[in-house]
Amino acid sequence: MTEATDREEPGHDPELDLVLERVIDVPPELVWTAWTRPEHVKQWFAPAPWTVSECEIDLRPGGAFRTVMRSPEGEAYPNVGCYLEIVENRRLVFTDALRPGYRPAENPFFTAVVTLEPSGGGTRYVARAIHRDVEGRKKHEEMGFQYGWSAALDQLVELAKTL
Amino acid sequence: MTEATDREEPGHDPELDLVLERVIDVPPELVWTAWTRPEHVKQWFAPAPWTVSECEIDLRPGGAFRTVMRSPEGEAYPNVGCYLEIVENRRLVFTDALRPGYRPAENPFFTAVVTLEPSGGGTRYVARAIHRDVEGRKKHEEMGFQYGWSAALDQLVELAKTL
Repeated sequence: MTEATDREEPGHDPELDLVLERVIDVPPELVWTAWTRPEHVKQWFAPAPWTVSECEIDLRPGGAFRTVMRSPEGEAYPNVGCYLEIVENRRLVFTDALRPGYRPAENPFFTAVVTLEPSGGGTRYVARAIHRDVEGRKKHEEMGFQYGWSAALDQLVELAKTL
Repeated sequence: MTEATDREEPGHDPELDLVLERVIDVPPELVWTAWTRPEHVKQWFAPAPWTVSECEIDLRPGGAFRTVMRSPEGEAYPNVGCYLEIVENRRLVFTDALRPGYRPAENPFFTAVVTLEPSGGGTRYVARAIHRDVEGRKKHEEMGFQYGWSAALDQLVELAKTL
């Protein structure tokens, strides 16, 4: 994370947000494809040995982003989010604070902002998790945000190279 | 409210949503102006004898929509929302489930979807309040949703005719 990144996202608060930033060697167009097609998301979104058994994407503001993650023991962890911003090949925003159709949700955890910038032949990839409060940020850290999101990104890169 | 309107908004649920629909005799462009400039919002957004003492508008997805309403006794009721969709002269969506910058909020109440369609020389105006649960919808009804939003719309029309 750099100061430049902090300045780019209005309202960034290092006490409340977690950020993964890396330059990866696949272009933004392939990263976008990996993020926006269910058959691809199922292959990379959960860090192994976790898996994604279901994925539904309705790629428009207010549309659904649903996944079911599976623990190695097979336990199901469903997530329902709502897309907020869709800027092809550049920026994807979704939140679990709203259900699809913008209906306020029961137990909001975070909003995700993923930004992609061309960098050489690759992508400067920034994934930001925006939490309600310090407790939310700490909980996400304890769940292994840095390891989990980074391992999933490795899987995304590996997949994107085959597209 | 008509069945046609219900069909138009994906995810509409009459148990959870409240809707004000009217055809008004000012064109969408003036309704839009009245909704999106702080100096105008202050004049119509609270049904008299309530008033709006402060209004801040950052008209972009993720931007702030802040108001302070005042009761006739002068008590302040601050509201902070986040814009989600901005389609000039046609559609405005904001929510208090997110703070500006898409940060999940403490006590979400509802998302507002305002749609404007040309109708003769006027506007078919639909304002929808989307609640998390039945309790939220009932609370909003008991707060006087139908009277309040309708009285405010009368004030908007009166103002828009002077623009």
